[in-house]
Amino acid sequence: MRIGFIGLGTMGAPMARNLLEAGFEVGVHNRTRAKEEPLADAGASRAASPADAASGAEVVVTIVSDTPDVEAVLFGDGGVAEAISDDAVVVDMSTISPDATRSFAERIRLVDAPVSGGSEGAEQGTLTIMVGGDADDVGRVRPVLEAMGSKITHVGPSGAGQAAKAVNQVIIAGVFQAVAEGMALGMASGLDMDKVLEAIGAGAARSWVLENRARNMLENRYPLGFRVSLHHKDLRIALEAARRAGVELPVTAMVAKVEQGLVADGFGDEDMSAIARALRR
Amino acid sequence: MRIGFIGLGTMGAPMARNLLEAGFEVGVHNRTRAKEEPLADAGASRAASPADAASGAEVVVTIVSDTPDVEAVLFGDGGVAEAISDDAVVVDMSTISPDATRSFAERIRLVDAPVSGGSEGAEQGTLTIMVGGDADDVGRVRPVLEAMGSKITHVGPSGAGQAAKAVNQVIIAGVFQAVAEGMALGMASGLDMDKVLEAIGAGAARSWVLENRARNMLENRYPLGFRVSLHHKDLRIALEAARRAGVELPVTAMVAKVEQGLVADGFGDEDMSAIARALRR
Repeated sequence: MRIGFIGLGTMGAPMARNLLEAGFEVGVHNRTRAKEEPLADAGASRAASPADAASGAEVVVTIVSDTPDVEAVLFGDGGVAEAISDDAVVVDMSTISPDATRSFAERIRLVDAPVSGGSEGAEQGTLTIMVGGDADDVGRVRPVLEAMGSKITHVGPSGAGQAAKAVNQVIIAGVFQAVAEGMALGMASGLDMDKVLEAIGAGAARSWVLENRARNMLENRYPLGFRVSLHHKDLRIALEAARRAGVELPVTAMVAKVEQGLVADGFGDEDMSAIARALRR
Repeated sequence: MRIGFIGLGTMGAPMARNLLEAGFEVGVHNRTRAKEEPLADAGASRAASPADAASGAEVVVTIVSDTPDVEAVLFGDGGVAEAISDDAVVVDMSTISPDATRSFAERIRLVDAPVSGGSEGAEQGTLTIMVGGDADDVGRVRPVLEAMGSKITHVGPSGAGQAAKAVNQVIIAGVFQAVAEGMALGMASGLDMDKVLEAIGAGAARSWVLENRARNMLENRYPLGFRVSLHHKDLRIALEAARRAGVELPVTAMVAKVEQGLVADGFGDEDMSAIARALRR
């Protein structure tokens, strides 16, 4: 199967590599074209534009930063829509607006399939993939998704993958803040935090964040992981979806403000566990 | 070994029962004395006062509601201090102020050993127990703790168990709120939440709360679990400790306000997953 792959960032590059390793024929395109080179060395062909990547492909994967980027890649000059065949399916793995996704899906055959699991998950092919779209289309792209993720769930119709991702990012926001507050109190109380983590890590306070990111907060070092700036973008999407749905998410809104401050202070490229910075004395 | 056991509430009663089943000789006392009867049927002796429970005991366990209750049980009229032998150790398993704990420990041989794991953990003997105090005292009471819990961690000196419990309750507050916000957004977005939980439950959003309490929030039913009113009391202690330590815990403070509202509205005896009520449209 021939796949067009557009977007070779921190997530996209290792995901495209996993497609190559799974035996797919992959044509890659990236706005900064130099990023195509390592993939070409690994066996990919290079495409001069999104349209070029889509030409002759059965599946086109897009994973770019934000809603306008997806719109440009699909429908802009030299975009996917110019060259894609009628029976090919676009799989958008970016995290973008559920509403925009639904409107794009009216113009092109589209499955939304945002991911969770960070750069580690992208490299190891163990991403969680939340899928929205027509069941037949989802079935056709499933072998492609299985080369990149270990947990692939068809959540519902078009936009449902993005809506589920918004739920995921909202929960993650609050859990990071919860763990940050706990670590701040423990350090300020003079506790041996190794002992505390041992004591509480198996009980009701247990979480992925506590297991994998509490140490960053205690050491005040925030290697990636998942960028503050990208999570902030995701929360903007989630808060907009919440506003439209008529629900208030007070902690999510607060964490979005904290992240906005981190970005303004130059910490946007740190892991989002850096929200603990705001609580340090 | 003879144990005096004071406080036969939702947590204390099954904990005392586990001590009996482990073969300890247990003398029980409860302010509302009728609660002693089921334990007496199970083989405990009944004590007319905390002093009576402490008389002749090698270990005295207290598990009552709040700091003033512990003070009264230990140092009030008919209190433990009147009758306890010099080499006996008090194990206070209540959740109370770390500072008050340290001052009590100057007056009586005291180990602080608050628990996490709820009524299920108390019944099954699988509590997480966070222990503060002198290493020799902790070593002496460890067999008693092992009959009630499956995860016993000596965190540090007197008060450290209570301080670790405060950290635990702070983290739990934020994680419950995080999951509540995620469920609110998902429901308002019209998602199939079974699919969403399946999709996100194994990734970075994973937590004990998501696994064990999200369903309550989706169904708007809040069986115990852990009482809102008790968690609210624990957050009061944690926020006071934070104030003294000079750290701000904004989400913890917000959840404490939500819980205060729930108590005022008559929901204080529900499980703390009821904080999701505040987000329902």
